[in-house]
Amino acid sequence: MGDKLWGGRFKSDTDKIVDNFNASIHFDKRLFKEDIVGSMAYCKMLGKQGIISKDEAATILNALKEIYGEIERGDFSFEDSKEDIHTHIEKALIEKIGSLGETIYTGRSRNDTIALDTRLYVKNSTIKIVNLIKKFQLSLIELAEKNQELTIPGYTHLQRAQPVLLAHHLMAYYEMLKRDRDRYSQALSRTNVLPLGSAALAGTTLNIDREFLSRELKLEGITANSMDAVSDRDFIVEFIFISALLMMHLSRLCEELIIWSTQEFEFIEISDSFATGSSIMPQKKNPDIPELIRGKTGRVYGNLISLLTTMKSLPLTYNKDMQEDKEPLFDTVDTVERSLTIFSMLLKEIDFKKDSLKKATEKGYLVATDLADYLVKKGTTFRKAHHLVGDIILTAKKKKKELHQLDLSELMRFSTLIEDDVYGWLDPVSSIKRRNISGGTGPEMVKKALTRAREELKS
Amino acid sequence: MGDKLWGGRFKSDTDKIVDNFNASIHFDKRLFKEDIVGSMAYCKMLGKQGIISKDEAATILNALKEIYGEIERGDFSFEDSKEDIHTHIEKALIEKIGSLGETIYTGRSRNDTIALDTRLYVKNSTIKIVNLIKKFQLSLIELAEKNQELTIPGYTHLQRAQPVLLAHHLMAYYEMLKRDRDRYSQALSRTNVLPLGSAALAGTTLNIDREFLSRELKLEGITANSMDAVSDRDFIVEFIFISALLMMHLSRLCEELIIWSTQEFEFIEISDSFATGSSIMPQKKNPDIPELIRGKTGRVYGNLISLLTTMKSLPLTYNKDMQEDKEPLFDTVDTVERSLTIFSMLLKEIDFKKDSLKKATEKGYLVATDLADYLVKKGTTFRKAHHLVGDIILTAKKKKKELHQLDLSELMRFSTLIEDDVYGWLDPVSSIKRRNISGGTGPEMVKKALTRAREELKS
Amino acid sequence: MGDKLWGGRFKSDTDKIVDNFNASIHFDKRLFKEDIVGSMAYCKMLGKQGIISKDEAATILNALKEIYGEIERGDFSFEDSKEDIHTHIEKALIEKIGSLGETIYTGRSRNDTIALDTRLYVKNSTIKIVNLIKKFQLSLIELAEKNQELTIPGYTHLQRAQPVLLAHHLMAYYEMLKRDRDRYSQALSRTNVLPLGSAALAGTTLNIDREFLSRELKLEGITANSMDAVSDRDFIVEFIFISALLMMHLSRLCEELIIWSTQEFEFIEISDSFATGSSIMPQKKNPDIPELIRGKTGRVYGNLISLLTTMKSLPLTYNKDMQEDKEPLFDTVDTVERSLTIFSMLLKEIDFKKDSLKKATEKGYLVATDLADYLVKKGTTFRKAHHLVGDIILTAKKKKKELHQLDLSELMRFSTLIEDDVYGWLDPVSSIKRRNISGGTGPEMVKKALTRAREELKS
Amino acid sequence: MGDKLWGGRFKSDTDKIVDNFNASIHFDKRLFKEDIVGSMAYCKMLGKQGIISKDEAATILNALKEIYGEIERGDFSFEDSKEDIHTHIEKALIEKIGSLGETIYTGRSRNDTIALDTRLYVKNSTIKIVNLIKKFQLSLIELAEKNQELTIPGYTHLQRAQPVLLAHHLMAYYEMLKRDRDRYSQALSRTNVLPLGSAALAGTTLNIDREFLSRELKLEGITANSMDAVSDRDFIVEFIFISALLMMHLSRLCEELIIWSTQEFEFIEISDSFATGSSIMPQKKNPDIPELIRGKTGRVYGNLISLLTTMKSLPLTYNKDMQEDKEPLFDTVDTVERSLTIFSMLLKEIDFKKDSLKKATEKGYLVATDLADYLVKKGTTFRKAHHLVGDIILTAKKKKKELHQLDLSELMRFSTLIEDDVYGWLDPVSSIKRRNISGGTGPEMVKKALTRAREELKS
Repeated sequence: MGDKLWGGRFKSDTDKIVDNFNASIHFDKRLFKEDIVGSMAYCKMLGKQGIISKDEAATILNALKEIYGEIERGDFSFEDSKEDIHTHIEKALIEKIGSLGETIYTGRSRNDTIALDTRLYVKNSTIKIVNLIKKFQLSLIELAEKNQELTIPGYTHLQRAQPVLLAHHLMAYYEMLKRDRDRYSQALSRTNVLPLGSAALAGTTLNIDREFLSRELKLEGITANSMDAVSDRDFIVEFIFISALLMMHLSRLCEELIIWSTQEFEFIEISDSFATGSSIMPQKKNPDIPELIRGKTGRVYGNLISLLTTMKSLPLTYNKDMQEDKEPLFDTVDTVERSLTIFSMLLKEIDFKKDSLKKATEKGYLVATDLADYLVKKGTTFRKAHHLVGDIILTAKKKKKELHQLDLSELMRFSTLIEDDVYGWLDPVSSIKRRNISGGTGPEMVKKALTRAREELKS
Repeated sequence: MGDKLWGGRFKSDTDKIVDNFNASIHFDKRLFKEDIVGSMAYCKMLGKQGIISKDEAATILNALKEIYGEIERGDFSFEDSKEDIHTHIEKALIEKIGSLGETIYTGRSRNDTIALDTRLYVKNSTIKIVNLIKKFQLSLIELAEKNQELTIPGYTHLQRAQPVLLAHHLMAYYEMLKRDRDRYSQALSRTNVLPLGSAALAGTTLNIDREFLSRELKLEGITANSMDAVSDRDFIVEFIFISALLMMHLSRLCEELIIWSTQEFEFIEISDSFATGSSIMPQKKNPDIPELIRGKTGRVYGNLISLLTTMKSLPLTYNKDMQEDKEPLFDTVDTVERSLTIFSMLLKEIDFKKDSLKKATEKGYLVATDLADYLVKKGTTFRKAHHLVGDIILTAKKKKKELHQLDLSELMRFSTLIEDDVYGWLDPVSSIKRRNISGGTGPEMVKKALTRAREELKS
Repeated sequence: MGDKLWGGRFKSDTDKIVDNFNASIHFDKRLFKEDIVGSMAYCKMLGKQGIISKDEAATILNALKEIYGEIERGDFSFEDSKEDIHTHIEKALIEKIGSLGETIYTGRSRNDTIALDTRLYVKNSTIKIVNLIKKFQLSLIELAEKNQELTIPGYTHLQRAQPVLLAHHLMAYYEMLKRDRDRYSQALSRTNVLPLGSAALAGTTLNIDREFLSRELKLEGITANSMDAVSDRDFIVEFIFISALLMMHLSRLCEELIIWSTQEFEFIEISDSFATGSSIMPQKKNPDIPELIRGKTGRVYGNLISLLTTMKSLPLTYNKDMQEDKEPLFDTVDTVERSLTIFSMLLKEIDFKKDSLKKATEKGYLVATDLADYLVKKGTTFRKAHHLVGDIILTAKKKKKELHQLDLSELMRFSTLIEDDVYGWLDPVSSIKRRNISGGTGPEMVKKALTRAREELKS
Repeated sequence: MGDKLWGGRFKSDTDKIVDNFNASIHFDKRLFKEDIVGSMAYCKMLGKQGIISKDEAATILNALKEIYGEIERGDFSFEDSKEDIHTHIEKALIEKIGSLGETIYTGRSRNDTIALDTRLYVKNSTIKIVNLIKKFQLSLIELAEKNQELTIPGYTHLQRAQPVLLAHHLMAYYEMLKRDRDRYSQALSRTNVLPLGSAALAGTTLNIDREFLSRELKLEGITANSMDAVSDRDFIVEFIFISALLMMHLSRLCEELIIWSTQEFEFIEISDSFATGSSIMPQKKNPDIPELIRGKTGRVYGNLISLLTTMKSLPLTYNKDMQEDKEPLFDTVDTVERSLTIFSMLLKEIDFKKDSLKKATEKGYLVATDLADYLVKKGTTFRKAHHLVGDIILTAKKKKKELHQLDLSELMRFSTLIEDDVYGWLDPVSSIKRRNISGGTGPEMVKKALTRAREELKS
C-alpha cells in the first residue's frame, strides 16, 4: 500500500495524477518546523504519562531533531505519494528508529495535528508581523521628527483644505497601524489554543495531558469542543482579514506617495534605490515600490474572499476543502512581511521638497476657515461668516490674489467687522497653531503625539 | 442658495439629478437618533465651556428633543436638496429657534459628526447583536439538553466517522459563536472613541472639552489624530467582517439542517411554522429558513468586499467615496439581526428523529477506530491495527454485516489478539464513553461543557 | 390557509416574522411588468393551444392589463403574507375574474416563472444600459472633438512620459466602453431564452408551445434542459460581472478627473453644477460626482461576490438561497444606470485649462524618447541612445533646463552625432506628429479614430 | 548599471531586496514561449519592412530558436536582477549575437510586449480549456448514456420533488458547461488583438506593419488606441471571471456527488482510485476529489476579486500595480485545467447504485404533482387539486403509505373525481414519460438532447 497512512481497505493504488491533486506537500512542507515542534511536545507528554517509556521518548526526540536539521539543510526529499508533511516526517522517523516511530501519532490524527501546526504557524507569523509594524511605525515617527517644521496642505476630496503639519499627516498612519497591531494581538487569544486531544473529531480515548501540552507549546489554553477544534479555520480567516485591513492602510499611503511624486505635486523625491526607470523613456523615474504594494492589496483581499468562500456551508467536521486554507495564508504572510519590510526602508529615504510644500500651503485659500472663525469671533454666526468668506474668495480669485494679498479696504467692503488684526489669521503657520486641541495639528499637540507614540512602541 | 450648508462660492444651483445622486438622506436618516444624541451632548459641552449660555443650551436641547420625537413619530419630511441627516436636523432646529440653532455646529464639521454618528450606530448595533448571539447560544444549549441522550454519527468528509453525542455536535456551534461574541466585544474598544474636536480634518480652534463629550456619550476615549479621525472607517469594515464570519458559521449549521431534513437522512423535522410548501408540488415541505440564511451569507461577504474596495487607495482625509460606507453597514446589521432572531426561534422547534439517528450511528463501521484502539491495547502498533481493521471491514462488507455482527471466530481469523472482550468495544455508546477527555464527546465532558456554557452566558 | 399558493399539507399558519423573512415582495414587486407581460404571452398561448377558450383568454388578458395599470399608478397594495409578485398578481386576478384566474399557472410553477421574469428584466436593463453607454461614448467623442488641438502629458506610473493629444487620451475610454458594450450584447444570447415549460423542474405534462412563447416575448430560443432552466442564474452573475468591469473603467476616469481637478494639476475645472462645497471651508469645490462613482465601484464588486458566493455548491435544482439573486441585480442596475447618466452630463461640462496642459506637456523631459529616436536615426543602437539621453537629462536637471533649452554645444558634448536638426525633435507637437501609426497619437490617426467611433455608434 | 534595460539616469544601484520585490521573473518566465514567438514575428516584420536586413533577421530568428530550446530544456538561468522574461531573453540574445540583438526592441517597449505575451498566453490557455470542457461534457454524455434507464428523484430545496431520468439530471451540467464554452469563445474576440505598435503608450514612430504582425501571430485584429492597449487588462479579468463561473458549476456537481456518496443517500460509489482513506479511521472512504474541486472554487473567486481590486481607480496608462495580474491568471489556469482533467476521469468511474435510486424515486410522494394533474384533467382547477392532494398526503403519511399504496376507496374519500385509472398516474416511470416536452425529462426528449449534445461537441 506504500506511502499512505491509510489504505487497508483499498483495492487499488491511487493514480499518480490523483496523488498529485490530493497532495498538500507542495505547500505544507512550509510547516515542517511547527510539525516537529508539535510532535516533540507530544512525545514528551507521552513519556510523562507513561504511554511510552522515558527512553523511547528520548529516542524519538533525538530522531525528530535530526529530521528537523535535515529539512532545514535541504537534505530531505519530498514526494507527492507521501501526501503531506505529517506523513513525510512520520515515515522518516520510522526509517530512523523503526516502528517506535509510529507511536507519535498514538491518540492523534492528522485532523488535530494540522490544526495545531497551522495555529503555531499563525502565532509565529503574527509575532513577526507585529514587530514589523512597530518598525514601520518607528520609521513614520522618525520621518515626522526629521521634518517637524514642515507644513503641507491637508486635503479633503484631494482638494486643499487647511494647512497642517506634515508630521501630523504622517502620524495619521501611525494610528491606523496601531489599530492593526491591536487586532493582530487580540486575535492571538483565539489562535493560541491547543487542539490536540480532539483526535479525528470525537476526542481521543487515551489519557492525554492537554494542559501540559498547552504549556509546553506556550499556548494560552485548550479547545473546548473536539468537533469544533478539527473544523475551525476562523483564526486563519481572521488573520487574513486583519492583513487585508493593514494592506488597505498601506495602499492609502502608497497612493499619497505616488501622487506626491508627480511632477505636478512635487512634494517628495523617492530615493533612486526604490524607484525604477523605463526601457524606452530615459527620463523616467517611477515609484514602483508604492505602486506594487498598492497593487498587492488586491492580492490579500483575494485571499480573504478565497477562504471565506471555501468555508461557507461546510458541514461538520473536517472536509477536504479545508486543505485550501494554507496557500492563501502563506501568500498573505509573504505579502505582508515583504511589504512592511521594504516600505519601512523606503520611508527612511523619502526626501520632502520644502519649497513646493510651502508654496502649496500658501496657495488655494487654505486659511478660508480661519477667516470665517475670525468673523465669528467678531460676532457673526458661523453660517453667515461662511457665506461672506465665500464671496470674498470669488473676488480674490478674479483678482488672482490669495486672501492675505487683499488690501484691508478690499476686505472691509465685505464686512465692517474686519479690522487690521485680520492678517494675523491669514497665514498657515498661525492657522496651525490655533488648532491646539488634543488630536489636532497644533505643534505642541503633535509633539505630544510623537512622544506618546515612542512610548507606545516600547510595549 | 437654499438648503445647502455651503454654497457661498457657487454661481449656479446644482441640478436636481445631481442633488439626488449626492444626497445620502435616503439612507442616513437611519442615523437620526445618533445624530441628535451627539448634538445634545455637544450642546451641553458648549454650555459647560461657556461657548453658549446655559439658557441657550437649554433652548437647543428642548428643540432637539422635539425634533427627535417628530422624526420618531414620522412627522418629519426628508428632501434630497437637504443632502443629509445633519442638514435636515440643523435646518429644523433653525426653523424652531432661529439662528441660535446654527451654534450646534460651532467647532464641528460634517466630517467629524458623521464619524461620531456612525460610531454610535455601530456601538448600539454591536450591543444588540451580542445579545442576540447569547439568545442563539442559549437555544443551542437548550436543544442540546433536551436531546442529551441522543447519539449521532460524527462526520468527516460527510462520511460517517465516529459516534458522538448530538449535544456535543450542537455545542461545536456554541464555540464558534462564542468566538464571534469575543470579536464583536473586542472591536468595540476601537469603535467607542470620540472623533469630535477633529472638525474638518485639522482640529478645531475652539476650546472644546473632548473628554467630557466622551464620558457624556459613554465612549471609552478620544481619537488621537484628527486627520485619521475623519477618514477612518476601520470600525465599520471590522464590524462587517466579524458579521461575515458569523454568517459563515450560521451557513454551516444551515447546511447541516438542510441535509438532516432530507428524506435520505431524516434526522430532523423542522416545525411547519418555519418551512414552506410548493405552489406546484403538494407534498413538499421545504427548509426555506435555513436556505435563506445560508444564501444571505453571500450578501454579507459582498458588503465586506464592497467597503474594502471603496476604501482602497483613498488619500487622506475625507473623500466622498466614503459616503458609500453606510448602506453595506445597514444591510449587514439587518441581515445579522434578522438571521439570528429567526434562527433562534427555529432551533427551539427542531424535532430530532430518535430512531433514524440510532440506526445511523449503528451502521457504517463507526466503531472501526475503537476496534483498532482495542488491538493497540492488546499490543499491536496503531498503524498495524489500522491495516488489520481495514481488512476486517472489507470482509464484513462482503458479508453485509456490521463489526459487532461478526462471530468471534471470524474476527480471530485476522488476529489472534482478538478475544471475547472485543464486543465491549464495538457499540457506539461505549465508544462515546471512552472519549472522556476534556473537549471530547464523553457524556461527563459534554455535561461539564453545557454547565460551563450556561455560566458563560451570564456574563 | 389564506394567501399562500401552497399549504394544504400544513397544520399551522406560519408566523408573521417568518412570512416577512421569507417574502420577496419587498423587492420583487419591481418585476411586475415582466411578470404581467410573461403571463399575457402565456395566456395567449393557452388560448392558441385550446387549453383555455379564446374568450377566457381575452377575459384574462383584459384583467391583467387592468392590474398592470393599477400597479403602475400606485393603486395596488403589497403584503408580506402574499410572498411574492406572482402571488400578488394571481390573487388580484382571481379577485377580478374568479377561479378562471388560476389558469394562468396551468403548466407553470413559480420556479420557471421567476426565471422568465428575471430574464426579461435583465434583457430590458441590458438594452437600456447599452444605450446609456452609447450616450457616454458620444460625450467622450464630443469632448475630444471640442478640445482637438490640446495636448496633455501621457503618463505611466503617474509620471509624465510622452506628449499625447488629449483626444487620444479620452478615446482610450471610448475603447474600454466599446468592450463593455460588446460584452453586454453577447451576454444577451444567453439571457434571451425561454425557461417556461420547465414547470417545477421536470418539464410540464401540458401541451405547451414553447416556440410560440419565445417568439411572442421576442426571445432568441428556449432552454434545453428543464432542471438547468430553473436553477440557472448565470445570466445574472454575468450581467453583474460585466457591470463590475464597466464600473472599473469608470473608476479609472473618475480617478483621473479627481487628480486633474487638484490645484496642483489644474488641468480641468468641473462645472459648479457637478461639484459641492464644504460646510466648514468656504473655499472648497469638491469633485463629488467622480468620487461617488469611484466609490460605487466597490458596491458592484460586492454584488458580484455576493451572488457568486450564494450560488456556490448549490445542488440541483431550485434552492431558496437563489431568492437572494434579485437585490444585487437591482442594485447593480440602479448603480450603473445612474452613474452613466450623470457621468455623461458631467463630461459635457468639463472645462480643460489650455495653459496648464501646455505647460505640463513642455516640462519634464517628455521628448526624451524622441531624442533617443533621433540618435538611433543617426546610427546608434537604441540601448546606447537610451543611456546617452539619460546622461543628458541628468545634466539638464542640474542646470534646471528642459532639453530644448540646452545649447547645441552642450548637447554635442554627449555625442558628436547630434546636429542642428535635433531641435526639430524636441518639441511636443512634432513628437506627437511622428507617432503617425494606426492606434497612435498622431493627429491624423486620432481624427480617423474619431470618425470611426462616430460610425460605430450608429449601429 | 548591469542588467537593467534602463538606468542611465540613476546614480546608485538598486538594492537586492528591491530587485527581488520588483522582479517578475519568478512567475513571468512562464511566458517565455509567448515572448519568443512574439519576438520572432516582430523580427520577421522588421526584416520585411527593411528596418533590419533579411540576413540580420535570419540571424536573430536562429538565435531566438536556440534560446527557446535552452529554456525548454532547463539550460537557462534566471536572476532577479534581470527583472523580467523580456530582459532575460534580450540579454541572452545579445550574448549570442552582439548588439544586433538589441534591435528586437526597436519600436517596442515592455509595455506593449507584456500585453502581447499575456494575450497570447490567455489565447492558448482558452483553447486548451475549451477542449478540456468538451472532454468533460463527453464524459457527462457517456455517463448519461451508460445509465440511461435509471431514474433519480429530482430535488428542489434538497427535498424530493419529482422523478426524473438520471440522464436528464446529468445533462443539466452539460448545459452549464456549454455556456461556459460560449463565454470563453466569445471572449477570444477581445483577447486576440495585437497591441504591438503602441510602444510605451503613444505609438511608435517607426514604420511598423501591425496588420502583418496580427496575421503572423494568428490574431483577429489590432488594438485601436495605444494608451488603452498598454493599460488594458480586461481580457485577463474576463478570463478569470468565466473561470469562476465554470468553477461554480463544478462546485455544484461536486456537492451533489459528495451528498450522493453518503451512507444515507448511497446513490453512487466513487472508484477507489479517486477517494482516500483516513489515517485514524480504517473504514473511511472519502470523496476527496470532489471536495477539493469544490474548495478550489474559492481560490478562483479570490483571483477574480484580486485583479478587480488591483485595477480599480488606476489612472492611464501603465502602472506597476498591473504586474500583479499574472499570478492570479496563472493560478486560475492551473486550477481550471487540473480540475477539469481529474473531474473528467472521475466521472468515468462513478458507479450508480440502481437499487437505492429506485427506492428513493418511489418514496416521498414524488408523484403528488401527477395526482394533482390527474384531478385537473378530471375537471378541478389546479389550485383546488393542489389542496386536495395536500390533504391526501397528510393522511397517507399517517398511514405510512405512499400514494399508490392507498386503496381506491381511501382516495375517493377525498374526491369523487378519482377513479380506477388514477393508479396509472402514481408511478414514477409514467410520471417521467408524461413530461414529454422539449427540455423536459421525457425519455424521448432526453434521447434527443443526448444526440444533439454529441453533435454540438463535433464543432
